[in-house]
Amino acid sequence: MAEGPEPKRRRAEAGDGDGVAAGNGAEAEAGAGAGAGAEPGPGAPFPLSSVRLRRLLRDSAREKAAFVHGQVTGPSGEDTDAVLILEKTPFQEEKIEELLRKHTKLELQMANDIYSTYRLYPPPELSEIKTTVVYPATEKHLQKYLRQEVHLIRESWEDYKNITLPFIQSQSFSIQWVYNILEKKAEADRIIHENQDPSNGFVLVPDFKWNQNQLYDLYLIALVQRRDVKSLRDLTAEHLPLLKNILQEGKEAIVKRFGVPGSQLRIYLHYQPSYYHLHVHFTALGYDAPGTSVERAHLLADVIDNLVLDSSYYQKRALTFALRADEPLLKKFQEAGRV
Amino acid sequence: MAEGPEPKRRRAEAGDGDGVAAGNGAEAEAGAGAGAGAEPGPGAPFPLSSVRLRRLLRDSAREKAAFVHGQVTGPSGEDTDAVLILEKTPFQEEKIEELLRKHTKLELQMANDIYSTYRLYPPPELSEIKTTVVYPATEKHLQKYLRQEVHLIRESWEDYKNITLPFIQSQSFSIQWVYNILEKKAEADRIIHENQDPSNGFVLVPDFKWNQNQLYDLYLIALVQRRDVKSLRDLTAEHLPLLKNILQEGKEAIVKRFGVPGSQLRIYLHYQPSYYHLHVHFTALGYDAPGTSVERAHLLADVIDNLVLDSSYYQKRALTFALRADEPLLKKFQEAGRV
Repeated sequence: MAEGPEPKRRRAEAGDGDGVAAGNGAEAEAGAGAGAGAEPGPGAPFPLSSVRLRRLLRDSAREKAAFVHGQVTGPSGEDTDAVLILEKTPFQEEKIEELLRKHTKLELQMANDIYSTYRLYPPPELSEIKTTVVYPATEKHLQKYLRQEVHLIRESWEDYKNITLPFIQSQSFSIQWVYNILEKKAEADRIIHENQDPSNGFVLVPDFKWNQNQLYDLYLIALVQRRDVKSLRDLTAEHLPLLKNILQEGKEAIVKRFGVPGSQLRIYLHYQPSYYHLHVHFTALGYDAPGTSVERAHLLADVIDNLVLDSSYYQKRALTFALRADEPLLKKFQEAGRV
Repeated sequence: MAEGPEPKRRRAEAGDGDGVAAGNGAEAEAGAGAGAGAEPGPGAPFPLSSVRLRRLLRDSAREKAAFVHGQVTGPSGEDTDAVLILEKTPFQEEKIEELLRKHTKLELQMANDIYSTYRLYPPPELSEIKTTVVYPATEKHLQKYLRQEVHLIRESWEDYKNITLPFIQSQSFSIQWVYNILEKKAEADRIIHENQDPSNGFVLVPDFKWNQNQLYDLYLIALVQRRDVKSLRDLTAEHLPLLKNILQEGKEAIVKRFGVPGSQLRIYLHYQPSYYHLHVHFTALGYDAPGTSVERAHLLADVIDNLVLDSSYYQKRALTFALRADEPLLKKFQEAGRV
């Protein structure tokens, strides 16, 4: 999936153009609710076996996930909508040997020299499918999971001034949660590094998507102290000290706290960003995080070099980004005849 | 996974930092060999059930794949190595309803308001695992599939001249397959579009990774006619007509043949590329193809704009790319004290 930038008020960027993460998003919304571990019985909340498949909303062949619109007929004959998210689960190392021994059937497909391929059919207990149900589902839920067409926009500086900037200003997304962090009213205990300079300072915190249990999906965010820089488009050579601080101190703080050196980090900005207060992403290089694709991510080192080369680089150059069909900004570009 | 550029002589770029694609790569090497469809019997080439697991070489939680080093003991007691690649298969739309009805067990994990999650255990016939075997495997095979640490390189122009360029020249990778296409000695029937101009022309062909059966993973490659441009590093304003032809004619040819408009295409170069004859990638925007990450991909539209801004942009600017620990170029950077 391409990353369709989606202006959001919330920090949690899970689901950014990532089919499976959207499923996780649903769970996150649900929270750690009651009923965990309970067995479904006659009083189970959802009759999975009697669901009728209406349509496939979306699937991900790469991630082995499917988003399904189903329907259930109630006792009085009325149909109710449901969204089902099915996702095959990763292999567990300790069960692989068992899997090879206990397969129920093995079909040779191809053999040539030292290579051969098979279809292996595992016993049920070794082939779990994670199933998430939204029931009853509204039209809004169905739309949320429906595959959206994505359009590439090539935004000139004039487009930015005439279309994007007025749109951002009209939306007035709340970024109070950013100010709460900067003012230590929230998440103060999560701060990894801080530079308090009002012009060239920033705060480094773990992103909500990262649970800090393992390093392979390391994800941190640097939030700048100053409040007058919305995005990449505002940057000039004036901001070089700030950007260099983030690059240098961010790397130092991460190797010190987590032992991950700078050569193992992907450090970048999004354009369009999810919220318009300048921030920089730090992700583990080996982690294929959503939003690292060339049509959304800009390496901080490249941004710095471009500004050294030309202070008004980001007020001259066209920038490319993708928008999903349901995003309001796409409508603005369409109305302006730019798509 | 990050895309570790891997200089290769072959066209098939499957496996570019993509765990699962590496499995496909193995198959590609094996070709459409004999034995397809045969049932494994007493004389089957590989005794899958008696494999002992030595170690997990690599796994991909996102793609539900595992690369395993296994061992088999022969009749005379000698141990032989094997590589096993296990990959769960994507959901088939027409079998989802059956899957929901025929599950062998369903465990409720969590229920909260309209959200609930389950563990669903499907019957064997609905939970195929694609299994690829390399047997007997050499140490080289094991190394190929072993997870490699990835290092980010920030290559200055001086680094390019002093380290990368001499390395490329010393390797003399064969790109005869490219010349065969340009000279119509191979794949002439696969050409989608051609501009025969010796300076500003190119040939557009489907990439080997794309089977052309569906559009969601559309992947084409433009190969330039001229043979003196190795990569992004060689480009100057002199090449603008060539690059503009590729962008314009490539988009026109793809919408004409496949009905996919330019706004649905990601058009980019790799740096480092897999082979040093200038080529441009065209992939479906909605397809998360390997090698689209910001540390490897450069949008053709950005390249054109940068060259318009400054003809020697790519002879000035540092460029970032990732190298796997086993790549010879990394050793060169290490020897030069640049990593």
